[in-house]
Amino acid sequence: GHYIVCGFGRVGRNVATELIATQRKFVAIDHVETQMDTQAERFPELVFLHGDASDDDLLVSAGIAEAAGVFAVTGDDSRNLMITITAKQLNPQIRVVARCHEVRNIEKLRKAGANAVVSPDFTGGMRIASLMLRPHVVSFLDEMLRSEHSVRVEEVALPADFTPCSLGSLALSHPDYVLIAVRTGKDWIFNPPADFILQPSHAVISMASPSGRLALEQALQR
Amino acid sequence: GHYIVCGFGRVGRNVATELIATQRKFVAIDHVETQMDTQAERFPELVFLHGDASDDDLLVSAGIAEAAGVFAVTGDDSRNLMITITAKQLNPQIRVVARCHEVRNIEKLRKAGANAVVSPDFTGGMRIASLMLRPHVVSFLDEMLRSEHSVRVEEVALPADFTPCSLGSLALSHPDYVLIAVRTGKDWIFNPPADFILQPSHAVISMASPSGRLALEQALQR
Ligand SMILES: [Ca+2]
Ligand SMILES: [Ca+2]
Repeated sequence: GHYIVCGFGRVGRNVATELIATQRKFVAIDHVETQMDTQAERFPELVFLHGDASDDDLLVSAGIAEAAGVFAVTGDDSRNLMITITAKQLNPQIRVVARCHEVRNIEKLRKAGANAVVSPDFTGGMRIASLMLRPHVVSFLDEMLRSEHSVRVEEVALPADFTPCSLGSLALSHPDYVLIAVRTGKDWIFNPPADFILQPSHAVISMASPSGRLALEQALQR
Repeated sequence: GHYIVCGFGRVGRNVATELIATQRKFVAIDHVETQMDTQAERFPELVFLHGDASDDDLLVSAGIAEAAGVFAVTGDDSRNLMITITAKQLNPQIRVVARCHEVRNIEKLRKAGANAVVSPDFTGGMRIASLMLRPHVVSFLDEMLRSEHSVRVEEVALPADFTPCSLGSLALSHPDYVLIAVRTGKDWIFNPPADFILQPSHAVISMASPSGRLALEQALQR
């Protein structure tokens, strides 16, 4: 499935840049057409629709029925709320991530069906504080998240037919990954001991290179 | 040393909230006084100065000579540039983290002396994209960064008088920390092998609880 980016201002264009970097297809919608003229160089293969992204017809034209996700990222909280509700109405399975200006609107966007809500002013403030108080940790986390860097946090879900067994019996040790935690539903166990019993519903969180991730997936296929 | 938050809008107040959460002292400056009247409840013990934060006299009044850091986080890139230059002039040792609206101004703020520059629209866009594309990893990284949670990424620098020795000889294994990497200057070695030789200039990156961090620090004091 592709993605629909509703609102192609500064935030929406940064979302689009990350979609391109990770090779995802997307359609952009904005009510300001000039937004696009100036961006043709940065986004040469962009599919752009002009109009109100909370309009049912426009979302249908953008292929919402087959889309994997909608970004409700205009600069207007009310419009993002309307986009969220419309998107979920047209495709209840779709994932919606919404942008929010006023903190008091976060809960309203969640109630409207947004799977996640982000306030750039909040995220930015946290990052600014972290860069002052613990710059080394921030740069390490950045390197982990950066697409070009080889190591990042990865989560590998255990297969549904996984036979429960102790972590120790799997002898998970490899130069290309470090085991960090096991996710059990919504919670997670940090640095689980060797006698921890892995279940089919669990997921293993590691730091890994792409080859390390593959090695871990193979070790857990049993 | 205390911190000086220049610009007490949405971003500045989020910075202040994190400073309070991590028990740091700070002074806030904004040219809009009403900004503060409405915030007395959220920040009961706030020291607030009214005026232009790029004004030398005001920064001196805010104690810039003894401060540890300045946040240049007004909504205006030019003003943040002026605050950065003024702050570094008055105290060349001070750490400055600046907010930036237009990406083209990031490099100018760095040249003016900012130690780090953050664009909330960029950070927000990356986070919005990540929450769509890899929600589990984001929530794991959030939990690591959250102050109340016990486990986070920690960096422990080796003492200057550390006697070089192999990582294996230290037998670093503990339920409260997981070794991830060793930082060697600006670069880092992921998942270093047992025969890796630790040097006094290195730092060990781990995921650890507060007690795990202490245990690791003690293990490295030799
Ligand atoms: Ca827009
Ligand atoms: Ca301001």
